[in-house]
Amino acid sequence: MIKKLTFIALTVLLSVEGLFAQQALFSGGPQITSPQVNPDNSVTFRLLAPDAREVRLTGDFIPAQGWMPGSELMTKDDKGIWEYTTKPLDSDLYGYAFTVDGLRMMDPNNVHQIRDVATVTNIVIVGGGQGDLYSVRQVPHGTVTRTWYDSPSNKYVQKRRVTVYTPPGYENSKKKYPVFYLLHGMGGDEEAWINLGRTAQIMDNLIAAKKAKPMIVVMTNGNVVQEAAPGESSLGLYKPTMQLDGTMDGQFESSFKDVIRFVENNYRVIPKSHARAIAGLSMGGYHTLHISRFYHKTFDYIGLFSAAVMPDEKVAGSPVYQDIEGTLKQQRDNGFSLYWIGIGKEDFLYKANVDYRQLLDKINFPYVYRESGGGHTWTNWRLYLSEFAPLLFK
Amino acid sequence: MIKKLTFIALTVLLSVEGLFAQQALFSGGPQITSPQVNPDNSVTFRLLAPDAREVRLTGDFIPAQGWMPGSELMTKDDKGIWEYTTKPLDSDLYGYAFTVDGLRMMDPNNVHQIRDVATVTNIVIVGGGQGDLYSVRQVPHGTVTRTWYDSPSNKYVQKRRVTVYTPPGYENSKKKYPVFYLLHGMGGDEEAWINLGRTAQIMDNLIAAKKAKPMIVVMTNGNVVQEAAPGESSLGLYKPTMQLDGTMDGQFESSFKDVIRFVENNYRVIPKSHARAIAGLSMGGYHTLHISRFYHKTFDYIGLFSAAVMPDEKVAGSPVYQDIEGTLKQQRDNGFSLYWIGIGKEDFLYKANVDYRQLLDKINFPYVYRESGGGHTWTNWRLYLSEFAPLLFK
Repeated sequence: MIKKLTFIALTVLLSVEGLFAQQALFSGGPQITSPQVNPDNSVTFRLLAPDAREVRLTGDFIPAQGWMPGSELMTKDDKGIWEYTTKPLDSDLYGYAFTVDGLRMMDPNNVHQIRDVATVTNIVIVGGGQGDLYSVRQVPHGTVTRTWYDSPSNKYVQKRRVTVYTPPGYENSKKKYPVFYLLHGMGGDEEAWINLGRTAQIMDNLIAAKKAKPMIVVMTNGNVVQEAAPGESSLGLYKPTMQLDGTMDGQFESSFKDVIRFVENNYRVIPKSHARAIAGLSMGGYHTLHISRFYHKTFDYIGLFSAAVMPDEKVAGSPVYQDIEGTLKQQRDNGFSLYWIGIGKEDFLYKANVDYRQLLDKINFPYVYRESGGGHTWTNWRLYLSEFAPLLFK
Repeated sequence: MIKKLTFIALTVLLSVEGLFAQQALFSGGPQITSPQVNPDNSVTFRLLAPDAREVRLTGDFIPAQGWMPGSELMTKDDKGIWEYTTKPLDSDLYGYAFTVDGLRMMDPNNVHQIRDVATVTNIVIVGGGQGDLYSVRQVPHGTVTRTWYDSPSNKYVQKRRVTVYTPPGYENSKKKYPVFYLLHGMGGDEEAWINLGRTAQIMDNLIAAKKAKPMIVVMTNGNVVQEAAPGESSLGLYKPTMQLDGTMDGQFESSFKDVIRFVENNYRVIPKSHARAIAGLSMGGYHTLHISRFYHKTFDYIGLFSAAVMPDEKVAGSPVYQDIEGTLKQQRDNGFSLYWIGIGKEDFLYKANVDYRQLLDKINFPYVYRESGGGHTWTNWRLYLSEFAPLLFK
């Protein structure tokens, strides 16, 4: 009935969907595997660039040179393939990129990328340990939802995007769940924790291993002037910037009640302080510190990940920042289950966290302190999430 | 109380979150804007590459050279910035990339990218027409959910990922909605329509303009051997391939009942044929053709976008593909509201679609035919979605 074509001819024809797929298909040349995780947990990176004069590898497994990322020279073989093999790496998730004759570029053989502010980076996971927590594994998977909520208390924008993780089984039960609010740092947005932070993978794996309770995780956008992440709002496909107005003027903290109301009205949650947690990294740690003080008896679990603990009340005028010591004493007296502070030894906020702990010690404010290696990095924030989540709602 | 830091010092410190953010911050050099959409709808692309010998621009606004993408030479200024300005472009969404000394690379000033099979491409939207439908605008937004469903009828994998768009207002009502199942082509997955196809933006904008009814859109994974898109399954961060086993062996069609059951059990839907639509592109058009025949009186709205209408019953042995002409007659007699066929004049499947329409004509099977310019491209599939969705559930 229909003109006969063999199945093989058909599938060859079908292989040509769109211009760039064509390009991928017909670009020819040797097939390259990159990155390749080797049995000893070293990783080999390869790039076909016969005409390049110098190719370097940057990655967060290569020590930084002061403020600048470190890099390693790659070596070219007689086919024009540049290659570099690391020493065996700790199990983890790593970002990397190539620098070809001074120009930073992605690995064309690796579509797996993450965006950090205005920079896109390839990723590779080395398994067998911590990296397994960041991998999608054969375990029940939660659901990830991007939705919008009304924030009438925010003077800048009142429609705001939020990312919500609901645990495996949420859809098939009538159970009510505890809620963990998870806040990003400066330059981040509601995509930061789910993409850079691997929240869904970490939670799926911890819940499957019965190391964490099933919980809802709510990832907000802490930039009060933004409706949504770059590219997800009516501002269009613009270039993200680190600096935004209003991120530390008290508006995010004072309008946080809007997201709590949205979550408690739209998800099956336990609307009690013993079933609410909040944590954040860097600027999100600052937001967490203030929100957990400002909303009395609302959060029993609080996490400060590499927190920016300044400015104090003399610097910013919002009611949110008034009488920090007094309200911390109030928070202490109200009681809570966990106040967790994590910081890397090399973090530029290390000293600020020492000072903050001295204040807490002075007023007998109980907290758990976790000092890791490294600095102000997503490597640490993924680690902190994987350690903090198991402590919640016990 | 806490060591005093000025707000300015703080925000400078906070600007350094992670290695690659540091790199972005301290890389120095002139600030480049790329891409830049000009008032006359021409687009200027720029790349800082002082040491490059030749920089070319590829993009789907540049005519292809046979099977290969076309390219335009860019021009270097005295600061080492390469630049190219297109002629005024039709309002649309365009993909592009640079080729630097023979090496394809992303625009480092544009974080907005889409993946098509194993190729990542930058995107730019030219507004003022069709492109506005693909933009996030200040209209009510639907919710996009990535979740997992059980597919016991699929012999390959039984846990499968699916992307679901629910329209604005879904959360705040008790209303039941019609459902539109939207299927990708070969090399695609459950991320294809939402990312490459701009489904959420198209539906938000059409619904806001009252050009489409509020509906749920379900974007499945048509590769029956896959649990999920590359990077979203336990297979890890592998390189996607165009060819997968089983995509046209009848399993996807015969197990499609599992996704219908999941949707109808988990969302507020109208479980009737008059409130079910199905459409797909290329291989997804093939799936749509067969699913809409095979499931009697299930779908009243059917869309074939650049459909692969082969193979016929002689080629594949699944019961799904038996007696195509007889079951099409049955489908005709059962009745439906719309059978829509769209194809580009330059599509390699154009002739196959002519043949298929001849068959339909022969048996007096009613359909609406839309012939566009261009070929087998996402430019056409976004266009078809924007024209097909307004016809549904009227």
